[in-house]
Amino acid sequence: MKFVDRIEQASRANNSLLCVGLDPDPARFPIHLAGRADAIFEFCRAIVDATADLACCFKPQIAYFAAHRAEDQLESLIAHIHQRHPGLPVILDAKRGDIGSTAELYAREAFERYRADAVTVNPYMGRDSVEPFLDWRDKGVILLCRTSNPGGSDLQFLEVDRVDGAKGKERLYERVARLVAGEWNQHGQCVLVVGATYPDELRRVRELIGDMPLLVPGIGAQGGDIAATVKAGRNASGMGLMINSSRAILYAGTQVDGGEKFAEAAQQAALQTRDEINRYRIG
Amino acid sequence: MKFVDRIEQASRANNSLLCVGLDPDPARFPIHLAGRADAIFEFCRAIVDATADLACCFKPQIAYFAAHRAEDQLESLIAHIHQRHPGLPVILDAKRGDIGSTAELYAREAFERYRADAVTVNPYMGRDSVEPFLDWRDKGVILLCRTSNPGGSDLQFLEVDRVDGAKGKERLYERVARLVAGEWNQHGQCVLVVGATYPDELRRVRELIGDMPLLVPGIGAQGGDIAATVKAGRNASGMGLMINSSRAILYAGTQVDGGEKFAEAAQQAALQTRDEINRYRIG
Repeated sequence: MKFVDRIEQASRANNSLLCVGLDPDPARFPIHLAGRADAIFEFCRAIVDATADLACCFKPQIAYFAAHRAEDQLESLIAHIHQRHPGLPVILDAKRGDIGSTAELYAREAFERYRADAVTVNPYMGRDSVEPFLDWRDKGVILLCRTSNPGGSDLQFLEVDRVDGAKGKERLYERVARLVAGEWNQHGQCVLVVGATYPDELRRVRELIGDMPLLVPGIGAQGGDIAATVKAGRNASGMGLMINSSRAILYAGTQVDGGEKFAEAAQQAALQTRDEINRYRIG
Repeated sequence: MKFVDRIEQASRANNSLLCVGLDPDPARFPIHLAGRADAIFEFCRAIVDATADLACCFKPQIAYFAAHRAEDQLESLIAHIHQRHPGLPVILDAKRGDIGSTAELYAREAFERYRADAVTVNPYMGRDSVEPFLDWRDKGVILLCRTSNPGGSDLQFLEVDRVDGAKGKERLYERVARLVAGEWNQHGQCVLVVGATYPDELRRVRELIGDMPLLVPGIGAQGGDIAATVKAGRNASGMGLMINSSRAILYAGTQVDGGEKFAEAAQQAALQTRDEINRYRIG
C-alpha cells in the first residue's frame, strides 16, 4: 500500500491527525532511565506504546539519535513500531538532499537501513536530487515548503515570477508547492511540510495542492495555534494533515515526581491534542 | 585557528587547491578488501595516506557511511586524518539543515562526534537554522549556493527582486551568495558551494563575495572543466578554491589487476589533478 493511503488508513483507524514527534533529549528523561545504555530507545518505546492508538504516525528526528551515537537505538525503535503497531507509518525526519548518486544512498539509509515509511527531504537542489527517493514508489517523500521557523522567510518568502502563464508573482514556497504537487508527484507519494506558525501560508498551500497531505510542525512549544492550523490546512474531507507535536507530549510528565509516570502523562497530552485537533476538522 | 585560515595554510603547504572527496563505494573496492569488516575505513585510509601531501582538505560524504551502518568507520577515519595529517582540515559533507534546537544537534554530530573542521549546510530554512553551526566559531560552515546537478536550476536559478536598492533582478543563488557573504558571515567562517559545471555562475559568485573560499564539486565524473573552473573561481591571490574530486581519484586504479595498486593510482590521479589546477591559478 502507498504511504499516503497508509496515513489515511491510520488516521481513520485512530480517528487522529496527530503525528507524535520523537525528539529524545536525555537531559530531560525521567530519573529512572538515567545512565541506562538504552535510555533513548526505552524512553521512546514507552512513548510509542502509550500513544500508538492516538496517533496517525510517528516521526523520529534523526539528529537526536546521531548526536548520541544511537543509530542502533533508532533502528530498534522503528523495528519495534513496525512489530507492535503495524498500521502506524514511521516518518524519518532527516531533511536529506544531495545529487543523484548520493541521494540514492540517503534513500537506502532511510528506507532499507531504518525501514522508514517516509523521509523528509530538502528541495533546494531540485527535482533530480529528489528522484532517487521517488524511485521508492511505496514510500512517502516529504518536501520542505514553508518551514515553521522565523528564518524560513529568508528564502521561502522571496517573490519569483510565475511560470504558469498567469501574471503577477508568487513566493518561493508557493513555487515549491506547485512543483511538488505537480511535476514531482507523478506517483502520488509526495507530502509538503508547512509550519503551523504560518496559517495564512498553510491556507495558500492547501489552495494550490488539492487534497495532498501536509506535515505540519510548530504547534505547542513553537506557538502554532491548533484551531487556526486545522481550519487552514484540512482538505475537503477534513483530512490531509499530519500535525506534529513533540516536546509537549514527550515531556508532559518528566518533571513530575521524578518522571515516573511520564508515559501516562504523554498519553494524556496526546489524547488532549488529538481531540482538540478533531474539534476543528469539520465545520 | 579559524577554518578559513587552516584551509589557506594547507593550500600553501601542499601547493594545492584539491579537495579529495571520500565517497567509498564497496562495490568498486579492490578485491583484497572484499569481505573485510573495516573495508570502508581501510580503503579510505589508504587513499588519505597516499594523497595527503597533494590535497588542501578531505571531504568524506556521510551518506556513503550511513547507508552501510559504518558511522564508526567514519569516526575512525577522521581521527586518523587528524592524527597522521594534522594540518589537513576535514569537511563533513552532510548537507544538514533544520530548525534551531535540531540544528544544534546536527552541529554536535559534525563537530563533537565526528570532529570535522567544517560541515556542508543547506540554506533553504534560512539564517536562524544556520546559526547553531555558526556558533562554533573556529569551524567552517559551507552553504549550498549553486549546486552542480542540472536540477539545481529548478529553484536556484529563479529570478527574485533585488533588495539592495539596485534595480533589476537576481537569481536565487545570487541572493544566497549575497546573504551568506554578508549578514551570515559575521565571524568569517562561511564558504559557498558552487558547481564546476556552471563556470559562468562561478564567476558571478566570485564577483559577489570577494575573496571568500568556495567549495567546487563537479569536475571529473560530472564533466566540469578544470581550466574554466579555476579561471572563473579563483580569488585575487589565485586562492580561495577547494576543488573537489572524488570518483576520478578513488577509483583510478581499482579496476586494474584486481586493484592491488589502487592507492598508487589514486596518488597519480591526485597529482595530475593538483598540477592541472595549479596551471590556471595565476595568469
